[in-house]
Amino acid sequence: MSSKIGLFAGSFDPVTNGHLAIVKSASRLFDQLYVGLFYNKDKAGFFTVPERRRMLEEALIDFKNVKVITAHDSLAVDIAEQIGVTHLVRGLRNGSDLEYESELAFFNRHLSETIDTVFFLTPAEVTYISSSRIRELIHFRSDISAFVPGSVVKEVEKKSEDFTSL
Amino acid sequence: MSSKIGLFAGSFDPVTNGHLAIVKSASRLFDQLYVGLFYNKDKAGFFTVPERRRMLEEALIDFKNVKVITAHDSLAVDIAEQIGVTHLVRGLRNGSDLEYESELAFFNRHLSETIDTVFFLTPAEVTYISSSRIRELIHFRSDISAFVPGSVVKEVEKKSEDFTSL
Amino acid sequence: MSSKIGLFAGSFDPVTNGHLAIVKSASRLFDQLYVGLFYNKDKAGFFTVPERRRMLEEALIDFKNVKVITAHDSLAVDIAEQIGVTHLVRGLRNGSDLEYESELAFFNRHLSETIDTVFFLTPAEVTYISSSRIRELIHFRSDISAFVPGSVVKEVEKKSEDFTSL
Amino acid sequence: MSSKIGLFAGSFDPVTNGHLAIVKSASRLFDQLYVGLFYNKDKAGFFTVPERRRMLEEALIDFKNVKVITAHDSLAVDIAEQIGVTHLVRGLRNGSDLEYESELAFFNRHLSETIDTVFFLTPAEVTYISSSRIRELIHFRSDISAFVPGSVVKEVEKKSEDFTSL
Amino acid sequence: MSSKIGLFAGSFDPVTNGHLAIVKSASRLFDQLYVGLFYNKDKAGFFTVPERRRMLEEALIDFKNVKVITAHDSLAVDIAEQIGVTHLVRGLRNGSDLEYESELAFFNRHLSETIDTVFFLTPAEVTYISSSRIRELIHFRSDISAFVPGSVVKEVEKKSEDFTSL
Amino acid sequence: MSSKIGLFAGSFDPVTNGHLAIVKSASRLFDQLYVGLFYNKDKAGFFTVPERRRMLEEALIDFKNVKVITAHDSLAVDIAEQIGVTHLVRGLRNGSDLEYESELAFFNRHLSETIDTVFFLTPAEVTYISSSRIRELIHFRSDISAFVPGSVVKEVEKKSEDFTSL
Repeated sequence: MSSKIGLFAGSFDPVTNGHLAIVKSASRLFDQLYVGLFYNKDKAGFFTVPERRRMLEEALIDFKNVKVITAHDSLAVDIAEQIGVTHLVRGLRNGSDLEYESELAFFNRHLSETIDTVFFLTPAEVTYISSSRIRELIHFRSDISAFVPGSVVKEVEKKSEDFTSL
Repeated sequence: MSSKIGLFAGSFDPVTNGHLAIVKSASRLFDQLYVGLFYNKDKAGFFTVPERRRMLEEALIDFKNVKVITAHDSLAVDIAEQIGVTHLVRGLRNGSDLEYESELAFFNRHLSETIDTVFFLTPAEVTYISSSRIRELIHFRSDISAFVPGSVVKEVEKKSEDFTSL
Repeated sequence: MSSKIGLFAGSFDPVTNGHLAIVKSASRLFDQLYVGLFYNKDKAGFFTVPERRRMLEEALIDFKNVKVITAHDSLAVDIAEQIGVTHLVRGLRNGSDLEYESELAFFNRHLSETIDTVFFLTPAEVTYISSSRIRELIHFRSDISAFVPGSVVKEVEKKSEDFTSL
Repeated sequence: MSSKIGLFAGSFDPVTNGHLAIVKSASRLFDQLYVGLFYNKDKAGFFTVPERRRMLEEALIDFKNVKVITAHDSLAVDIAEQIGVTHLVRGLRNGSDLEYESELAFFNRHLSETIDTVFFLTPAEVTYISSSRIRELIHFRSDISAFVPGSVVKEVEKKSEDFTSL
Repeated sequence: MSSKIGLFAGSFDPVTNGHLAIVKSASRLFDQLYVGLFYNKDKAGFFTVPERRRMLEEALIDFKNVKVITAHDSLAVDIAEQIGVTHLVRGLRNGSDLEYESELAFFNRHLSETIDTVFFLTPAEVTYISSSRIRELIHFRSDISAFVPGSVVKEVEKKSEDFTSL
Repeated sequence: MSSKIGLFAGSFDPVTNGHLAIVKSASRLFDQLYVGLFYNKDKAGFFTVPERRRMLEEALIDFKNVKVITAHDSLAVDIAEQIGVTHLVRGLRNGSDLEYESELAFFNRHLSETIDTVFFLTPAEVTYISSSRIRELIHFRSDISAFVPGSVVKEVEKKSEDFTSL
């Protein structure tokens, strides 16, 4: 059978243990998995795109068939077609996710006849972790080490040293 | 990479176009796909197990890497381990499905460390079709041909001839 | 414009203040409204069909354009077509109702090209009232007068007198 | 019986096939239907109000009992009272819609004793279409012709010609 | 302030780690907590009432302010009034629970003016555990020790020895 | 048993009858209840913080064991630890609330080992009232007196007099 190639796209601002659980599952299903850092040029994130990429790549270093790519102002399904992806990969946490993903999947089916979407449910122990909550915890200087990979903890520490050394 | 083998289990009483949409997606993702007709020996269905199997097999005849199997009074994850399945396959239609599947996936993670579950969202045009509704329509002698494969329509016609010829 | 005729079908075992709120809204929208007591001949209810009908008719006596009808082992949409109904009427209380009604509406669209379904949301003060909960309260001899019309309270009192006089 | 007059209010930025399905159902139920383009003077939309109105009116030209009106910085229920509307008309797509609409209906019941709200479920084939998703597709220059009336496709083409001719 | 006395009612067929998490939280909030084993005389459970009570009591032995009581064919709110309970205690796992509990709380408010209901969310690691799923796992002879207290594991082992020694 | 001290935190912009229902329940459960007006220094609300505090305090004047406190740019759980709170108090209205609160409770469990969260369901008659909807009604100069305490009505009147007297 021909190769199965997945694309797991997101803004990863920052990557969390929830994302890692999806990557772990997807990397075992697909021959190759792209993790796509998608961003909007006009919208500043909490972390810069190079910071986000660095955190992602360090967190994913042990996954041999996983490669981080970046794209801006593009639909995931369009990038997927350009690079030969066979399946989009998405995580599902709750009912709101399902409504959002159902809508997205509906449009993707119209936009591409060949690319399908597979979903993984996030395991219970990471299901409530979201990037937006992590950003809030960082803002309030709470401990985030139970929810994100070490590369994010390190990046946050570096940032606060920068502040302190001013 | 080693073969990816899926198992899509259900009671298929009867198979619907919703099931077929999941099989179509799954058969394109996996090297081999088992469609598992799981039943409970103590519980009579609407169709008998041989009827269900016949309808399934006829509906899936064009899917070359799909094979129908039967099992009774077993957990899908246990059968999966016995026959070398790598992934369970499930369809998701709505929020109730998601609650049910989240619970199931939680237990399957505990029962098997190696078998993961992948989900497909049913396309909008088949998302409201359920076997229980089809059985109700058959009971009320409504036309079901828009919702099920031809093999089911044929089986229903045969059944009502049997009644009529009494 | 031609007459608009609604059908509000249910098992009304028994009718509740939630049902009455829907009838009130629907009777103001439609020229004529049928309240359809649908039952299954093989399934005994908590109240008998004549009891249910009597409670309904007494509760609806002041609605001049409302008429109670009964039907058994039929789909609402089929009865609707036979008696010239233009719209099915349904109440919506919560997310589970919505999933159920979405499925029903999907099939009704296939079964009849001319009959549409309109929905009313139950007002907050009656939204949690269901016939099944009322039956449970009756079983536990709790006071139900805040949740059902007087005709139901009367019927329940008559029933318990019957028991007592034995 | 006196005339039944509906008001289907929205921002229609832009009108979609989902909106059209609701208008089609509502125009068959009501003697007259107002489609109300409601906007906020302080908030720029994706399309201007005259553009939105033009697209709406062209899309609705065949509905003889439907009339487009505009209003700004007003509650739908207040406008409804002023122009003799008997019912507000709303579409329901999913659980989030239901929560939002339940809240809205609660307040409308307090704000007007005479005006009721009727709901239609969007058909499965248009249930995932939202104006916000259409705007995103336009932004990414994707094909939207399967999701919106021709008047919107035409307006988008005119806009991009304007850009190109700069 | 006067004593706060809670009642956590259920059928506990059998008690699970999810129940224990609620008891742990509630026993820290209330001066005294009753765990009420409620059953229906006409409905056989999976475990007998004495078995369920024994498993519960052994599992709760270290909670000094917790006492197991039994009641049959009664509403929790009625028993609560009889024994001086100030608050009903309930666990919440998901949206279906919330719909059910909202309905229950609505009726309890009508049935008792003095007794209020407090809710705890089940922790993520036990949120998918339900007694019905545990019974299914026991039926299929799967390992349940990660989901229930030791007293349940012991009871199950005893039962299967009984079968084996026949 | 040691004192039970609750903290009900929110932005109260403005306080509503929904909030009051939660305070009423919580003040009967806890020995002392803090109502925490939490705000973000960088984000202007609809009402100023002193206005919000004044409306809250006047609305809560009859609750003898309730005290209003303010905090900015802090997590509720951190403030709770500083002032000896034993339980966070939250209201639940619907499925969206539940998803949000499940996430919050997950993080609070990690951030503090000693502070637990208790939930109350808002009664049906106030369940659809939200501060954001109240602000919208004020904007449209609708009557809000059925949804908020008198102190809010008074504050709104004072504000519009200020406008008028210009």
